[in-house]
Amino acid sequence: MPQDPVITSVTDLASSDAKWVSLKKVEYIDQLGTARSWEIAVRKTTAKSGVDAVAIGNILLHPSKPPSTLLVIQYRPPIGKFTVEWPAGLVDEHESAEQAAIREMKEETGYSCKILDVGPVLASDPGLANATLQLVMMEVQLDEKESMPEQKLDEGELIERVVVPLSELYDRLMNWSKDDKFMVAGKLFFFAAGLHFAKQGNYI
Amino acid sequence: MPQDPVITSVTDLASSDAKWVSLKKVEYIDQLGTARSWEIAVRKTTAKSGVDAVAIGNILLHPSKPPSTLLVIQYRPPIGKFTVEWPAGLVDEHESAEQAAIREMKEETGYSCKILDVGPVLASDPGLANATLQLVMMEVQLDEKESMPEQKLDEGELIERVVVPLSELYDRLMNWSKDDKFMVAGKLFFFAAGLHFAKQGNYI
Repeated sequence: MPQDPVITSVTDLASSDAKWVSLKKVEYIDQLGTARSWEIAVRKTTAKSGVDAVAIGNILLHPSKPPSTLLVIQYRPPIGKFTVEWPAGLVDEHESAEQAAIREMKEETGYSCKILDVGPVLASDPGLANATLQLVMMEVQLDEKESMPEQKLDEGELIERVVVPLSELYDRLMNWSKDDKFMVAGKLFFFAAGLHFAKQGNYI
Repeated sequence: MPQDPVITSVTDLASSDAKWVSLKKVEYIDQLGTARSWEIAVRKTTAKSGVDAVAIGNILLHPSKPPSTLLVIQYRPPIGKFTVEWPAGLVDEHESAEQAAIREMKEETGYSCKILDVGPVLASDPGLANATLQLVMMEVQLDEKESMPEQKLDEGELIERVVVPLSELYDRLMNWSKDDKFMVAGKLFFFAAGLHFAKQGNYI
Protein backbone atom coordinates (compact mmCIF):
# COMPACT_ATOMS: atom_id res chain seq x y z
CA MET A 1 0.00 0.00 0.00
CA PRO A 2 1.36 3.46 -0.90
CA GLN A 3 0.62 5.04 2.53
CA ASP A 4 -1.17 4.38 5.80
CA PRO A 5 -4.68 5.86 6.04
CA VAL A 6 -5.03 8.79 8.44
CA ILE A 7 -8.14 10.03 10.25
CA THR A 8 -8.22 13.82 9.90
CA SER A 9 -11.38 14.62 11.90
CA VAL A 10 -14.21 13.05 13.91
CA THR A 11 -17.24 15.33 14.27
CA ASP A 12 -20.78 15.07 15.60
CA LEU A 13 -23.29 14.17 12.93
CA ALA A 14 -26.98 15.08 13.12
CA SER A 15 -29.25 12.13 12.28
CA SER A 16 -30.92 14.27 9.64
CA ASP A 17 -27.56 14.86 7.89
CA ALA A 18 -26.53 11.19 7.93
CA LYS A 19 -26.86 9.22 4.73
CA TRP A 20 -26.13 5.69 5.95
CA VAL A 21 -27.00 5.46 9.65
CA SER A 22 -29.72 6.92 11.86
CA LEU A 23 -30.63 6.86 15.52
CA LYS A 24 -34.02 5.64 16.67
CA LYS A 25 -35.75 5.47 20.01
CA VAL A 26 -37.69 2.25 20.64
CA GLU A 27 -40.47 2.48 23.23
CA TYR A 28 -41.61 -0.88 24.59
CA ILE A 29 -43.49 -2.60 27.38
CA ASP A 30 -41.39 -5.23 29.12
CA GLN A 31 -42.43 -8.65 30.46
CA LEU A 32 -43.57 -7.14 33.76
CA GLY A 33 -45.70 -4.46 32.09
CA THR A 34 -43.24 -1.62 32.64
CA ALA A 35 -42.83 1.02 29.90
CA ARG A 36 -39.17 1.33 28.87
CA SER A 37 -37.12 2.78 26.02
CA TRP A 38 -33.92 1.87 24.16
CA GLU A 39 -31.71 3.86 21.79
CA ILE A 40 -30.55 2.07 18.68
CA ALA A 41 -28.44 2.63 15.55
CA VAL A 42 -30.20 1.70 12.32
CA ARG A 43 -28.70 1.42 8.84
CA LYS A 44 -30.71 3.45 6.35
CA THR A 45 -29.89 0.80 3.73
CA THR A 46 -31.38 -2.13 5.66
CA ALA A 47 -32.03 -4.95 3.22
CA LYS A 48 -35.51 -5.81 2.06
CA SER A 49 -34.49 -9.45 1.71
CA GLY A 50 -34.91 -10.24 5.43
CA VAL A 51 -31.24 -10.09 6.32
CA ASP A 52 -28.67 -7.30 5.99
CA ALA A 53 -25.38 -9.04 5.38
CA VAL A 54 -23.63 -12.30 4.74
CA ALA A 55 -20.29 -13.53 6.09
CA ILE A 56 -18.39 -16.02 3.96
CA GLY A 57 -16.83 -18.84 5.97
CA ASN A 58 -14.65 -20.26 3.27
CA ILE A 59 -12.45 -23.38 3.16
CA LEU A 60 -9.86 -23.68 0.39
CA LEU A 61 -8.93 -27.27 -0.47
CA HIS A 62 -5.76 -27.84 -2.46
CA PRO A 63 -4.29 -31.20 -3.57
CA SER A 64 -0.95 -30.67 -1.82
CA LYS A 65 -1.53 -27.88 0.71
CA PRO A 66 -3.33 -27.95 4.07
CA PRO A 67 -7.02 -26.88 4.23
CA SER A 68 -6.94 -23.11 4.45
CA THR A 69 -9.22 -20.10 4.63
CA LEU A 70 -9.11 -16.79 2.80
CA LEU A 71 -9.24 -13.67 4.97
CA VAL A 72 -9.55 -10.04 3.93
CA ILE A 73 -7.68 -7.14 5.49
CA GLN A 74 -9.07 -3.64 4.98
CA TYR A 75 -8.97 -0.25 6.65
CA ARG A 76 -12.06 0.34 8.80
CA PRO A 77 -12.62 4.00 9.70
CA PRO A 78 -15.00 3.23 12.62
CA ILE A 79 -12.09 1.70 14.55
CA GLY A 80 -9.21 3.47 12.76
CA LYS A 81 -7.34 0.22 12.13
CA PHE A 82 -7.01 -2.55 9.55
CA THR A 83 -9.41 -5.37 10.37
CA VAL A 84 -8.89 -9.06 9.70
CA GLU A 85 -12.22 -10.57 8.64
CA TRP A 86 -13.86 -13.17 6.47
CA PRO A 87 -15.15 -11.76 3.16
CA ALA A 88 -18.60 -10.28 3.69
CA GLY A 89 -21.12 -8.05 2.02
CA LEU A 90 -24.63 -6.71 2.00
CA VAL A 91 -27.42 -8.90 0.64
CA ASP A 92 -29.22 -7.33 -2.34
CA GLU A 93 -33.00 -6.98 -2.39
CA HIS A 94 -33.94 -10.03 -4.47
CA GLU A 95 -31.10 -12.22 -3.32
CA SER A 96 -30.78 -15.03 -0.77
CA ALA A 97 -27.82 -15.10 1.63
CA GLU A 98 -26.51 -18.08 -0.36
CA GLN A 99 -26.64 -16.16 -3.66
CA ALA A 100 -25.02 -13.11 -2.05
CA ALA A 101 -22.20 -15.27 -0.66
CA ILE A 102 -21.49 -16.86 -4.06
CA ARG A 103 -21.55 -13.43 -5.75
CA GLU A 104 -19.33 -11.73 -3.16
CA MET A 105 -16.78 -14.55 -3.16
CA LYS A 106 -16.61 -14.34 -6.95
CA GLU A 107 -16.18 -10.54 -6.79
CA GLU A 108 -13.57 -10.52 -4.07
CA THR A 109 -11.56 -13.55 -5.19
CA GLY A 110 -12.83 -14.86 -8.52
CA TYR A 111 -13.33 -18.31 -6.96
CA SER A 112 -16.36 -20.52 -7.54
CA CYS A 113 -17.52 -22.52 -4.56
CA LYS A 114 -19.65 -25.31 -3.15
CA ILE A 115 -22.02 -24.31 -0.31
CA LEU A 116 -21.58 -26.47 2.81
CA ASP A 117 -23.99 -24.83 5.27
CA VAL A 118 -26.26 -21.79 5.43
CA GLY A 119 -26.69 -20.51 8.98
CA PRO A 120 -29.79 -18.82 10.43
CA VAL A 121 -30.40 -15.06 10.61
CA LEU A 122 -28.23 -13.76 13.48
CA ALA A 123 -28.13 -10.54 15.48
CA SER A 124 -24.92 -8.68 14.70
CA ASP A 125 -24.74 -6.51 17.84
CA PRO A 126 -28.14 -6.84 19.57
CA GLY A 127 -27.50 -4.34 22.37
CA LEU A 128 -26.84 -1.49 19.93
CA ALA A 129 -28.25 -2.12 16.46
CA ASN A 130 -30.90 -3.94 14.46
CA ALA A 131 -28.28 -5.29 12.02
CA THR A 132 -28.51 -8.97 11.07
CA LEU A 133 -26.31 -11.40 9.18
CA GLN A 134 -26.06 -15.01 8.04
CA LEU A 135 -22.96 -17.20 7.98
CA VAL A 136 -22.56 -19.17 4.77
CA MET A 137 -19.89 -21.88 4.95
CA MET A 138 -18.41 -22.77 1.58
CA GLU A 139 -15.69 -24.98 0.14
CA VAL A 140 -13.47 -24.08 -2.82
CA GLN A 141 -11.62 -26.90 -4.59
CA LEU A 142 -8.39 -25.66 -6.14
CA ASP A 143 -6.21 -27.35 -8.76
CA GLU A 144 -2.57 -28.16 -8.09
CA LYS A 145 -1.34 -25.09 -9.97
CA GLU A 146 -4.19 -22.72 -9.17
CA SER A 147 -3.15 -19.33 -7.89
CA MET A 148 -5.10 -16.32 -6.67
CA PRO A 149 -7.34 -15.05 -9.48
CA GLU A 150 -8.08 -11.42 -10.33
CA GLN A 151 -10.32 -9.52 -7.92
CA LYS A 152 -13.26 -7.49 -9.15
CA LEU A 153 -13.48 -4.62 -6.67
CA ASP A 154 -15.56 -1.49 -6.61
CA GLU A 155 -13.73 1.84 -6.92
CA GLY A 156 -12.22 2.85 -3.61
CA GLU A 157 -12.28 -0.69 -2.23
CA LEU A 158 -8.78 -1.61 -1.12
CA ILE A 159 -8.80 -5.13 0.17
CA GLU A 160 -5.80 -7.33 0.80
CA ARG A 161 -6.30 -11.08 0.77
CA VAL A 162 -4.42 -13.52 2.97
CA VAL A 163 -4.66 -17.33 2.92
CA VAL A 164 -4.17 -19.02 6.31
CA PRO A 165 -4.12 -22.78 7.06
CA LEU A 166 -7.10 -23.60 9.32
CA SER A 167 -4.79 -25.34 11.79
CA GLU A 168 -2.96 -22.02 12.28
CA LEU A 169 -5.98 -19.71 12.22
CA TYR A 170 -6.31 -19.11 15.98
CA ASP A 171 -2.59 -18.43 16.51
CA ARG A 172 -2.40 -16.17 13.46
CA LEU A 173 -5.35 -14.09 14.71
CA MET A 174 -3.69 -13.83 18.13
CA ASN A 175 -0.50 -12.60 16.43
CA TRP A 176 -2.27 -9.97 14.31
CA SER A 177 -3.87 -8.68 17.48
CA LYS A 178 -0.44 -7.95 18.98
CA ASP A 179 0.21 -5.41 16.19
CA ASP A 180 -1.48 -2.11 17.01
CA LYS A 181 -2.25 -1.46 13.32
CA PHE A 182 -4.64 -4.43 13.18
CA MET A 183 -7.81 -5.57 14.91
CA VAL A 184 -9.51 -8.94 14.35
CA ALA A 185 -13.26 -8.90 13.76
CA GLY A 186 -15.23 -10.51 16.58
CA LYS A 187 -17.18 -13.08 14.61
CA LEU A 188 -14.14 -14.51 12.82
CA PHE A 189 -12.31 -14.78 16.14
CA PHE A 190 -15.24 -16.60 17.77
CA PHE A 191 -15.23 -19.17 14.93
CA ALA A 192 -11.47 -19.63 15.37
CA ALA A 193 -11.96 -19.97 19.14
CA GLY A 194 -14.55 -22.71 18.51
CA LEU A 195 -12.10 -24.59 16.26
CA HIS A 196 -9.27 -24.08 18.77
CA PHE A 197 -11.40 -25.17 21.70
CA ALA A 198 -12.59 -28.31 19.88
CA LYS A 199 -8.93 -29.35 19.45
CA GLN A 200 -8.04 -28.70 23.09
CA GLY A 201 -9.52 -31.56 24.97
CA ASN A 202 -12.31 -33.92 25.71
CA TYR A 203 -15.09 -31.41 25.89
CA ILE A 204 -17.11 -32.56 22.87
CA MET B 1 -42.58 -14.63 32.01
CA PRO B 2 -45.87 -12.89 32.75
CA GLN B 3 -46.28 -11.41 29.24
CA ASP B 4 -44.43 -10.97 25.97
CA PRO B 5 -42.73 -7.59 25.53
CA VAL B 6 -44.31 -5.28 22.94
CA ILE B 7 -42.72 -2.45 20.98
CA THR B 8 -45.14 0.48 21.07
CA SER B 9 -43.23 3.02 18.96
CA VAL B 10 -40.02 3.56 16.99
CA THR B 11 -39.21 7.22 16.41
CA ASP B 12 -36.32 9.26 15.00
CA LEU B 13 -33.90 10.40 17.65
CA ALA B 14 -31.70 13.48 17.31
CA SER B 15 -28.08 12.80 18.26
CA SER B 16 -28.27 15.67 20.73
CA ASP B 17 -31.25 14.05 22.53
CA ALA B 18 -29.63 10.60 22.75
CA LYS B 19 -28.19 9.55 26.08
CA TRP B 20 -26.39 6.33 25.11
CA VAL B 21 -25.49 6.47 21.42
CA SER B 22 -24.32 9.20 19.05
CA LEU B 23 -23.51 9.51 15.38
CA LYS B 24 -20.11 10.73 14.23
CA LYS B 25 -18.61 11.49 10.86
CA VAL B 26 -15.04 10.31 10.39
CA GLU B 27 -13.01 12.11 7.73
CA TYR B 28 -9.91 10.24 6.57
CA ILE B 29 -7.30 9.99 3.85
CA ASP B 30 -7.14 6.51 2.35
CA GLN B 31 -4.08 4.53 1.20
CA LEU B 32 -4.12 6.19 -2.22
CA GLY B 33 -4.29 9.72 -0.78
CA THR B 34 -8.01 10.21 -1.45
CA ALA B 35 -10.11 12.12 1.12
CA ARG B 36 -13.11 10.01 2.21
CA SER B 37 -15.67 9.96 5.01
CA TRP B 38 -17.53 7.31 7.01
CA GLU B 39 -20.57 7.53 9.29
CA ILE B 40 -20.36 5.62 12.55
CA ALA B 41 -22.39 4.88 15.67
CA VAL B 42 -20.55 5.54 18.92
CA ARG B 43 -21.58 4.58 22.45
CA LYS B 44 -21.44 7.58 24.75
CA THR B 45 -20.41 5.22 27.54
CA THR B 46 -17.32 3.86 25.78
CA ALA B 47 -15.05 2.31 28.37
CA LYS B 48 -11.89 4.01 29.53
CA SER B 49 -10.30 0.64 30.14
CA GLY B 50 -9.36 0.08 26.47
CA VAL B 51 -12.23 -2.28 25.66
CA ASP B 52 -16.00 -1.82 25.86
CA ALA B 53 -17.37 -5.25 26.66
CA VAL B 54 -16.58 -8.80 27.57
CA ALA B 55 -18.26 -12.00 26.39
CA ILE B 56 -18.11 -14.99 28.71
CA GLY B 57 -17.42 -18.25 26.93
CA ASN B 58 -18.19 -20.59 29.79
CA ILE B 59 -17.82 -24.36 30.16
CA LEU B 60 -19.65 -26.10 32.99
CA LEU B 61 -18.02 -29.35 34.12
CA HIS B 62 -20.10 -31.74 36.23
CA PRO B 63 -19.03 -35.16 37.58
CA SER B 64 -21.86 -37.04 35.88
CA LYS B 65 -23.18 -34.73 33.15
CA PRO B 66 -21.70 -33.84 29.76
CA PRO B 67 -19.62 -30.62 29.44
CA SER B 68 -22.14 -27.85 28.98
CA THR B 69 -22.39 -24.10 28.56
CA LEU B 70 -24.67 -21.55 30.14
CA LEU B 71 -26.56 -19.26 27.79
CA VAL B 72 -28.72 -16.25 28.57
CA ILE B 73 -31.99 -15.38 26.89
CA GLN B 74 -33.22 -11.81 27.11
CA TYR B 75 -35.47 -9.42 25.22
CA ARG B 76 -33.45 -7.10 22.97
CA PRO B 77 -35.42 -4.02 21.82
CA PRO B 78 -33.04 -3.25 18.89
CA ILE B 79 -34.20 -6.42 17.13
CA GLY B 80 -37.57 -6.86 18.88
CA LYS B 81 -36.87 -10.51 19.78
CA PHE B 82 -35.39 -12.63 22.54
CA THR B 83 -31.71 -13.24 21.85
CA VAL B 84 -29.72 -16.33 22.78
CA GLU B 85 -26.23 -15.21 23.86
CA TRP B 86 -23.35 -15.95 26.14
CA PRO B 87 -23.37 -13.84 29.31
CA ALA B 88 -21.72 -10.50 28.59
CA GLY B 89 -21.32 -7.06 30.05
CA LEU B 90 -19.54 -3.75 29.89
CA VAL B 91 -16.03 -3.49 31.35
CA ASP B 92 -15.76 -0.93 34.15
CA GLU B 93 -13.16 1.81 34.10
CA HIS B 94 -10.51 0.27 36.34
CA GLU B 95 -11.18 -3.32 35.43
CA SER B 96 -9.52 -5.80 33.07
CA ALA B 97 -11.63 -7.97 30.75
CA GLU B 98 -10.76 -10.93 32.97
CA GLN B 99 -11.98 -9.18 36.12
CA ALA B 100 -15.17 -8.06 34.35
CA ALA B 101 -15.85 -11.62 33.18
CA ILE B 102 -15.43 -13.05 36.69
CA ARG B 103 -17.68 -10.32 38.16
CA GLU B 104 -20.39 -10.65 35.49
CA MET B 105 -20.48 -14.45 35.74
CA LYS B 106 -20.85 -14.14 39.51
CA GLU B 107 -23.65 -11.58 39.12
CA GLU B 108 -25.57 -13.44 36.46
CA THR B 109 -25.14 -16.99 37.80
CA GLY B 110 -23.42 -16.92 41.18
CA TYR B 111 -20.73 -19.28 39.86
CA SER B 112 -17.03 -18.93 40.54
CA CYS B 113 -14.74 -19.88 37.68
CA LYS B 114 -11.27 -20.68 36.39
CA ILE B 115 -10.06 -18.57 33.44
CA LEU B 116 -8.90 -20.69 30.48
CA ASP B 117 -8.10 -18.05 27.86
CA VAL B 118 -8.36 -14.28 27.44
CA GLY B 119 -8.78 -13.28 23.82
CA PRO B 120 -7.51 -10.07 22.18
CA VAL B 121 -9.50 -6.86 21.73
CA LEU B 122 -11.92 -7.49 18.83
CA ALA B 123 -14.05 -5.25 16.63
CA SER B 124 -17.71 -5.89 17.36
CA ASP B 125 -19.19 -4.59 14.09
CA PRO B 126 -16.35 -2.73 12.31
CA GLY B 127 -18.41 -1.44 9.36
CA LEU B 128 -20.82 0.45 11.63
CA ALA B 129 -19.44 1.12 15.10
CA ASN B 130 -16.28 1.60 17.14
CA ALA B 131 -17.44 -0.96 19.73
CA THR B 132 -14.89 -3.52 20.92
CA LEU B 133 -15.01 -6.67 23.02
CA GLN B 134 -12.87 -9.47 24.39
CA LEU B 135 -13.79 -13.14 24.67
CA VAL B 136 -12.89 -14.68 28.02
CA MET B 137 -13.12 -18.49 28.09
CA MET B 138 -13.75 -19.91 31.54
CA GLU B 139 -14.40 -23.24 33.18
CA VAL B 140 -16.74 -23.83 36.13
CA GLN B 141 -16.33 -27.05 38.13
CA LEU B 142 -19.64 -28.13 39.68
CA ASP B 143 -20.26 -30.63 42.46
CA GLU B 144 -22.45 -33.68 41.93
CA LYS B 145 -25.43 -32.05 43.62
CA GLU B 146 -24.81 -28.46 42.60
CA SER B 147 -27.77 -26.66 41.11
CA MET B 148 -28.25 -23.18 39.64
CA PRO B 149 -27.44 -20.57 42.31
CA GLU B 150 -29.25 -17.28 42.91
CA GLN B 151 -28.76 -14.55 40.33
CA LYS B 152 -27.89 -11.01 41.34
CA LEU B 153 -29.54 -8.89 38.67
CA ASP B 154 -30.02 -5.16 38.36
CA GLU B 155 -33.56 -3.82 38.51
CA GLY B 156 -35.31 -4.27 35.18
CA GLU B 157 -32.92 -7.00 34.02
CA LEU B 158 -34.94 -10.06 33.10
CA ILE B 159 -32.57 -12.78 32.03
CA GLU B 160 -33.41 -16.44 31.61
CA ARG B 161 -30.57 -18.94 31.88
CA VAL B 162 -30.35 -22.17 29.89
CA VAL B 163 -27.68 -24.87 30.17
CA VAL B 164 -26.86 -26.70 26.93
CA PRO B 165 -24.41 -29.61 26.43
CA LEU B 166 -21.58 -28.43 24.16
CA SER B 167 -22.12 -31.40 21.86
CA GLU B 168 -25.67 -30.15 21.19
CA LEU B 169 -24.88 -26.42 21.03
CA TYR B 170 -24.93 -26.00 17.25
CA ASP B 171 -28.17 -27.95 16.76
CA ARG B 172 -29.88 -26.16 19.64
CA LEU B 173 -28.97 -22.76 18.20
CA MET B 174 -30.32 -23.87 14.81
CA ASN B 175 -33.57 -24.93 16.50
CA TRP B 176 -34.00 -21.65 18.40
CA SER B 177 -33.56 -19.82 15.11
CA LYS B 178 -36.60 -21.62 13.66
CA ASP B 179 -38.81 -19.95 16.28
CA ASP B 180 -39.67 -16.41 15.19
CA LYS B 181 -39.61 -15.16 18.81
CA PHE B 182 -35.86 -15.83 19.11
CA MET B 183 -32.67 -14.74 17.38
CA VAL B 184 -29.22 -16.13 18.12
CA ALA B 185 -26.40 -13.61 18.61
CA GLY B 186 -23.81 -13.72 15.84
CA LYS B 187 -20.70 -14.25 17.92
CA LEU B 188 -22.10 -17.21 19.89
CA PHE B 189 -23.22 -18.83 16.64
CA PHE B 190 -19.77 -18.40 15.07
CA PHE B 191 -18.18 -20.15 18.07
CA ALA B 192 -20.70 -22.99 17.75
CA ALA B 193 -20.03 -23.17 14.00
CA GLY B 194 -16.30 -23.49 14.73
CA LEU B 195 -16.98 -26.36 17.17
CA HIS B 196 -19.38 -28.00 14.71
CA PHE B 197 -16.98 -27.62 11.81
CA ALA B 198 -14.09 -29.11 13.79
CA LYS B 199 -16.18 -32.23 14.39
CA GLN B 200 -17.17 -32.57 10.72
CA GLY B 201 -14.13 -33.89 9.00
CA ASN B 202 -10.46 -33.89 8.36
CA TYR B 203 -9.99 -30.18 7.94
CA ILE B 204 -7.79 -29.52 10.93
